[in-house]
Amino acid sequence: MTLKNSKLKIIPLGGLNEIGKNITVFEYGNDILIVDCGLAFPEDDMFGIDLVIPDFSYLIANKNKIRALILTHGHEDHIGAVSYLLRHVKVPIYGTKLTLGLLKNKLREHNVYYPDMHFCVSAGQIVKFGTFSVEFIRTNHSIADSVALAINTPLGMVVHSGDFKVDYTPIEGKPIDLQRFAEIGKRGVLLFLCESTNVESKGYTLSEKTVGDILERIFEESPKQRLMIATFSSNIHRIQQIINSAFKHRRKVVIAGRSMISAVRTAAELGYLNIPSNILIETAQIKNYPPERLVIITTGSQGEEMSALARMVSHDHKQIEVLPGDKIIISASSIPGNEKAISKVIDGLLKLGAEVVYEKLMEVHVSGHAKQEEIKLLHVLLKPKYLMPVHGEYRHLKKHKDLAVSLGMDKRNVFLMNIGDVLEIDKKDARINGIVPAGQVLVDGLGIGDVGNVVLRDRKILAEDGLMIVILGVQRDTGLLVTGPDVITRGFVYVKESEYLISGAKRVVAQALDNVDGNIREQWLMVKALIRDTLNRYLWQNTKRRPMILPILVDVQS
Amino acid sequence: MTLKNSKLKIIPLGGLNEIGKNITVFEYGNDILIVDCGLAFPEDDMFGIDLVIPDFSYLIANKNKIRALILTHGHEDHIGAVSYLLRHVKVPIYGTKLTLGLLKNKLREHNVYYPDMHFCVSAGQIVKFGTFSVEFIRTNHSIADSVALAINTPLGMVVHSGDFKVDYTPIEGKPIDLQRFAEIGKRGVLLFLCESTNVESKGYTLSEKTVGDILERIFEESPKQRLMIATFSSNIHRIQQIINSAFKHRRKVVIAGRSMISAVRTAAELGYLNIPSNILIETAQIKNYPPERLVIITTGSQGEEMSALARMVSHDHKQIEVLPGDKIIISASSIPGNEKAISKVIDGLLKLGAEVVYEKLMEVHVSGHAKQEEIKLLHVLLKPKYLMPVHGEYRHLKKHKDLAVSLGMDKRNVFLMNIGDVLEIDKKDARINGIVPAGQVLVDGLGIGDVGNVVLRDRKILAEDGLMIVILGVQRDTGLLVTGPDVITRGFVYVKESEYLISGAKRVVAQALDNVDGNIREQWLMVKALIRDTLNRYLWQNTKRRPMILPILVDVQS
Repeated sequence: MTLKNSKLKIIPLGGLNEIGKNITVFEYGNDILIVDCGLAFPEDDMFGIDLVIPDFSYLIANKNKIRALILTHGHEDHIGAVSYLLRHVKVPIYGTKLTLGLLKNKLREHNVYYPDMHFCVSAGQIVKFGTFSVEFIRTNHSIADSVALAINTPLGMVVHSGDFKVDYTPIEGKPIDLQRFAEIGKRGVLLFLCESTNVESKGYTLSEKTVGDILERIFEESPKQRLMIATFSSNIHRIQQIINSAFKHRRKVVIAGRSMISAVRTAAELGYLNIPSNILIETAQIKNYPPERLVIITTGSQGEEMSALARMVSHDHKQIEVLPGDKIIISASSIPGNEKAISKVIDGLLKLGAEVVYEKLMEVHVSGHAKQEEIKLLHVLLKPKYLMPVHGEYRHLKKHKDLAVSLGMDKRNVFLMNIGDVLEIDKKDARINGIVPAGQVLVDGLGIGDVGNVVLRDRKILAEDGLMIVILGVQRDTGLLVTGPDVITRGFVYVKESEYLISGAKRVVAQALDNVDGNIREQWLMVKALIRDTLNRYLWQNTKRRPMILPILVDVQS
Repeated sequence: MTLKNSKLKIIPLGGLNEIGKNITVFEYGNDILIVDCGLAFPEDDMFGIDLVIPDFSYLIANKNKIRALILTHGHEDHIGAVSYLLRHVKVPIYGTKLTLGLLKNKLREHNVYYPDMHFCVSAGQIVKFGTFSVEFIRTNHSIADSVALAINTPLGMVVHSGDFKVDYTPIEGKPIDLQRFAEIGKRGVLLFLCESTNVESKGYTLSEKTVGDILERIFEESPKQRLMIATFSSNIHRIQQIINSAFKHRRKVVIAGRSMISAVRTAAELGYLNIPSNILIETAQIKNYPPERLVIITTGSQGEEMSALARMVSHDHKQIEVLPGDKIIISASSIPGNEKAISKVIDGLLKLGAEVVYEKLMEVHVSGHAKQEEIKLLHVLLKPKYLMPVHGEYRHLKKHKDLAVSLGMDKRNVFLMNIGDVLEIDKKDARINGIVPAGQVLVDGLGIGDVGNVVLRDRKILAEDGLMIVILGVQRDTGLLVTGPDVITRGFVYVKESEYLISGAKRVVAQALDNVDGNIREQWLMVKALIRDTLNRYLWQNTKRRPMILPILVDVQS
């Protein structure tokens, strides 16, 4: 049923011109569907920030229209902000079994788990939400149970790829449902939202199975060594392959790291991991087995400081010690920004006498994202009228556009959007029309959004050059300096070796105050500005640094 | 002449278990040679640090023995700390023409240029320094005029590779002097110090010429577009190839960016760049030429914030504007840690409507460092008795050892050293024996070494969670609280939205002070500790943050 003059609106609230934080709003008349609700990790200049979530203002303002939140798969950049959304809006959540299983763990931690709001769906199923109906389509990805969505709207079919790759030999389940994509394409697709993560890479992504083959070869070639494999805890297929090889080579399996233990438990409970009985042992039992009878599967493939692997390197892990002769496989690629941390962990392992295998040396990892040829395949099967590249920095979105145009698409039908932009589609055509609030909300500890630009700017200044506090006891009435100036610094210079500089700072402040007349002295704000200016100049000249300067005037009645 | 019982000592003071800061000491009897003296860039957790230089204590303590500083080539990680060494020790400096030319610019900036201490050498030349004599051997690298060193010592020949690759079709000069390496190898090599940068990569590094071919193709395929190419200013061969293509396609060349202008000027003056007359134009003349008659060669290939290219993106460059239709080539690979900055610049250029070509899309860069097959070639030609892998993190050094062992070397003859370790060689054998001071000296603004662990730790705390200052006016004699507690925060929370938290902080401090008896109140240190403990607990409970807490007690006579 088409409402008169009604328009279909598609509003990305995250995931465009950035990596992570994926969330898209589909709106028609009084119905809103949300697809995914992920988090992003902080940029280098977001000092002290733990994670970044979308701005939910638009959803809060339109909460009555929201019919459902639909999740394509269980990665943090697609489900990690759900717990924050639920603080504002209670909403029914639809996803496949593993996705919901992983989500529930997180929601329980955040005390926002409402069991009756979770609806488990399977690939192939169609669910109606107001004027929308949504079909879940099987895809392949680096996490099991991923789906794409075919969203039937009054104006036509909209397809959202989710994260996907084309894997003809997946570890569990079947290849991506290309037939269904073809059928839907045959009937006509209005709009395709397609992920862009690997659009810069030529060719095809290799099958997950190729990693299993390499790992199996490592098992065969290492009959005497203890094996330890670090990978992403959500990569259930990778873990399955390791368990398969362990079984074949009669090794016991130890699961290490909090998130790995939790993911393996959830996946096993839900039937996504096939674990032979008695193969898993507790960490405490390691000592009962010789090295060649063990495999340890661990977190820490990104060099994360608190991960099990990093703690083993720093002798900080209570139960597992890296031993000379261990063979350790980093079965992951480095997420941009983590290169140095990973390098440090590899060095640490080597120094402990372990052998380390990583992507640069052997193909112990494949990507979960489609490269150019796979993206082209979906484009050709779906033949969409309009395209909105999603999930990527601008260069990815732009490259995706070029790719679509090279396949014959009209470039005016490709929309490179910013988050908050509203793509409006009616019976005639499509256009970017209007904007809604969207952006980054920073989470620091328990605080959500209480760290903004001012706080970050201060942290940056403090991080670069530290601070200098100048304390003056002033008789307010007369403006007389009674005590001080005293100076305290932190993060500025090594004080014991900089006495001359500090005493100079006191001197220039005292001189500056001597030179002002009583009228100004009475005005504390001006005095503070004077102190700041004086010290800024003095410190820049002597150190070429610009610490934060905090003049503190205390009213001393004398 | 062999001194009785004298030993040859080789002491790396930098460049091992780290990237950059290359410097090695060779010592025999009363003679010391220093090879290279480079800087390193700060790690992510070295907040506010500009650069890192070696600890020169050992050289300062032995300054009378130093016969010369010998430079292998003109990159910052080999010459960047010379100006700091010269503040302590005046030493004759030997290097090839371009190396000295680039060095002189830097020394002049630092006011430590002593013209009579510079000695220009050419590949093939042999210079005697006390008991040492040093032969300079032509190599290929990403900067012109690079050399390896064959250091003849009373105990045998020591070869230092410098940075090298094997390029059979170099842009200027000749291929690396493999014949000379073979001759020296034939006569017997005691020790080989060999760089390890690309030892993880299989195969051969491509010739610099392949980049020229790709760039030429871009010139051919872009007859209507303005071209802009960002690369390292020291890559004179790359710049030469761009100029050659520009000449062929009748384009004028603009040089942009301070370090690019300086490097091009130096290289041209010394005859390392062959620039057709009238091809270079000033930035101000750009407006006089249509886009298709221009090439701009610029700095900024690493996304550096203050580089010409980054400033063009942020509309901060006074004379050059990026125009829609410009084709911009990032002719460099990303140095680990710079990925995000580069990505930001690429996005910015694309948003301005430019077309951007980078390594992921086309082979517009090759490395200047030898890969496995090239490293093997030198090993096989030299057949050294001992090996010390240099220039790399531990994983590179370890991999280099494995490579040497795979070529038949006795693993006991390969020395994986830390900086400061002393490799001692006598007529019988070699061993690591003893240690000298070595490490990182941090340069922040004008300060050299005045920022150490305490200051960095404070900067880290301030960067993560900011600070809270608590000011109390106390009557010291009685311990009476006269004014306050007043609270100032910076970089902690957005104060306007956190009034409740701040007033709570004041309350818990006041309560804590109420609960202590007069005796303790008189002891300021204990009061301060009490305030810190109280606030740490209160703030952690309420925010899960740990800002730096600075209690300031001011003696108020009331």
